[in-house]
Amino acid sequence: MSHEVVVIEGDGIGREVVPAAVEVLEALPVDFEFVEAEAGDAVEERTGAALPAETYDLAADADATLFGAAGETAADVILPLREAVDSFVNVRPAKAYPGVDAVRPETDVVFLRENTEGVYAGHEDRLSDDLSTLTRVVTSSASRELAEYACEFVEDGRGPSGDPDEGFTVAHKANVMRETDGRFREEVLAVADERGVDADEELMDAFATKLPLDPTQYGVIVCPNLAGDVLSDLAAGLVGGLGLLPSANIGHDNALFEPVHGTAPDIAGEGIANPTAAILSAAMLLEYLGHVEEGQRVRDAVEGVLSDGPRTGDLGGDATTDEVTAAVVDRL
Amino acid sequence: MSHEVVVIEGDGIGREVVPAAVEVLEALPVDFEFVEAEAGDAVEERTGAALPAETYDLAADADATLFGAAGETAADVILPLREAVDSFVNVRPAKAYPGVDAVRPETDVVFLRENTEGVYAGHEDRLSDDLSTLTRVVTSSASRELAEYACEFVEDGRGPSGDPDEGFTVAHKANVMRETDGRFREEVLAVADERGVDADEELMDAFATKLPLDPTQYGVIVCPNLAGDVLSDLAAGLVGGLGLLPSANIGHDNALFEPVHGTAPDIAGEGIANPTAAILSAAMLLEYLGHVEEGQRVRDAVEGVLSDGPRTGDLGGDATTDEVTAAVVDRL
Ligand SMILES: CC(C)[C@H](C(=O)O)[C@@H](O)C(=O)O
Ligand SMILES: CC(C)[C@H](C(=O)O)[C@@H](O)C(=O)O
Repeated sequence: MSHEVVVIEGDGIGREVVPAAVEVLEALPVDFEFVEAEAGDAVEERTGAALPAETYDLAADADATLFGAAGETAADVILPLREAVDSFVNVRPAKAYPGVDAVRPETDVVFLRENTEGVYAGHEDRLSDDLSTLTRVVTSSASRELAEYACEFVEDGRGPSGDPDEGFTVAHKANVMRETDGRFREEVLAVADERGVDADEELMDAFATKLPLDPTQYGVIVCPNLAGDVLSDLAAGLVGGLGLLPSANIGHDNALFEPVHGTAPDIAGEGIANPTAAILSAAMLLEYLGHVEEGQRVRDAVEGVLSDGPRTGDLGGDATTDEVTAAVVDRL
Repeated sequence: MSHEVVVIEGDGIGREVVPAAVEVLEALPVDFEFVEAEAGDAVEERTGAALPAETYDLAADADATLFGAAGETAADVILPLREAVDSFVNVRPAKAYPGVDAVRPETDVVFLRENTEGVYAGHEDRLSDDLSTLTRVVTSSASRELAEYACEFVEDGRGPSGDPDEGFTVAHKANVMRETDGRFREEVLAVADERGVDADEELMDAFATKLPLDPTQYGVIVCPNLAGDVLSDLAAGLVGGLGLLPSANIGHDNALFEPVHGTAPDIAGEGIANPTAAILSAAMLLEYLGHVEEGQRVRDAVEGVLSDGPRTGDLGGDATTDEVTAAVVDRL
């Protein structure tokens, strides 16, 4: 069976790291049919649309999509793409690797971020010359769906510790957003309780203090949309930057995989971007499509290269994207 | 001239650290009239109101208020108190001190947090069994008032570097909250431009990655309400926890000073809480009331004690609150 995977390089280093990830996928005994599609600043300049309808439709119909990065148009590309794949959860692991300089080398956490609502639901109004409002949306159904996913994730031993008994932590701001985050918190904790999964909670501001002080307190963290955005980016800072972090936007029968980093305009086009985040996103894609063993092979190869292989400039080395990619392929 | 200062110990270690801060204030040649008032869990249990009307009125009428902490009722106490003093900006310095174990010892930043609106404006609705909404509010007037304050703050050399040319950074999420944070961003940058203050900007998620990677990039950071809450708490994690962080809620002719920490129920009542955050809040109170030199004396004394004086358990020592307070008073 061949998997149809839409490949969207986007802008900047997306054009370098996505081909690297595809090269890794092609080196495995898995049958892919790759379909190239366009999105981002360059397409917008040419066609007026950052995300052409054709790309949206391709992503919506494929088995999975691999996306790189977009520049100024990032939000115009990524938010509709998440919708195209009907994604309800954004999975964001943040793990420090041996040999990589990290503020907190003990960090090993996974954020499960609600991916459809909160402030991202996007109802904004300009009510007067002085006043604008945004309607933040929280539903029980989206909160429960996320929580069901989190419970399965933990039960399947996919948390950092692999131990289902560790449960998860809900991070929220229900002491201020009592009705909306109150609903989120209540539903998530209720689902955990129904399924017998251990769940504790933390206010998102307290979480932001405690994570840098001791990241080993946490494993799987379940959050509303914007909280997940900010707190997972904080974790990225603790593990040494965005160059290592993959992410998965999981939908009902479709998904989108993307490195957490952006287009890195300062180094784009030089062939020196770190392909690790994109390659690890490809590993998540493999696992999503049922190729768990191959996903693990990619992870092991990446970890091997990170600990004693060539490294790109962001990690203090001087290797090119191609050299790092070849080293990963070599170790598969 | 005597200053009328309302003193609200609140719950937990508030009852230990606020008296410590008052002791420091009393040791200075400044004339205070302290008026005690109640707020918090214990009062709520007794009277049904976490913030009695009497306390609200006292805070509203005084020259300044010093508050400790409240437990479960924190939001019911602190949010109305900020309103009582008509506060439009929450000033939150986060500085690592020599001799204190910090994740990022180079951290020295000040957050200027909008203190009246954003998600804290608090219009929430339960629209159906499934759906709740919150109306996030951003006005040009509040954004501009905050920005004017930020410009003065920077011009007066009150930023960490003391150098007005360093300007400030606006942190926001205007790529998603285009109308509301778009308005905030635009107004803040416009005011900076009008006043000739240098201002750059950062998306709040990118800021959360970059601050731990290199805090020396930042000095004064201007944020919407919730962003300021979370990002300043993140900075607290980088300087070694909440035990050191003071804050000021500045109003038009009134203000409220409070340590950033909570009630610390695990150690409350034992006389071993770190009084530093409360004492530094008292230093901010002194400066607010025009006693800049005395404020500096308190800061110097605190820094001296932190670097080679007795320290409480949270900083790896075994001194009591009283011992640390006495050491600070000794050095004044
Ligand atoms: C580009 C932006 C809209 C996006 C988000 O806020 O979700 C990004 O920060 C991310 O986290 O993928
Ligand atoms: C207690 C809570 C309402 C408060 C806030 O969110 O502002 C606290 O976290 C703070 O930062 O002072």
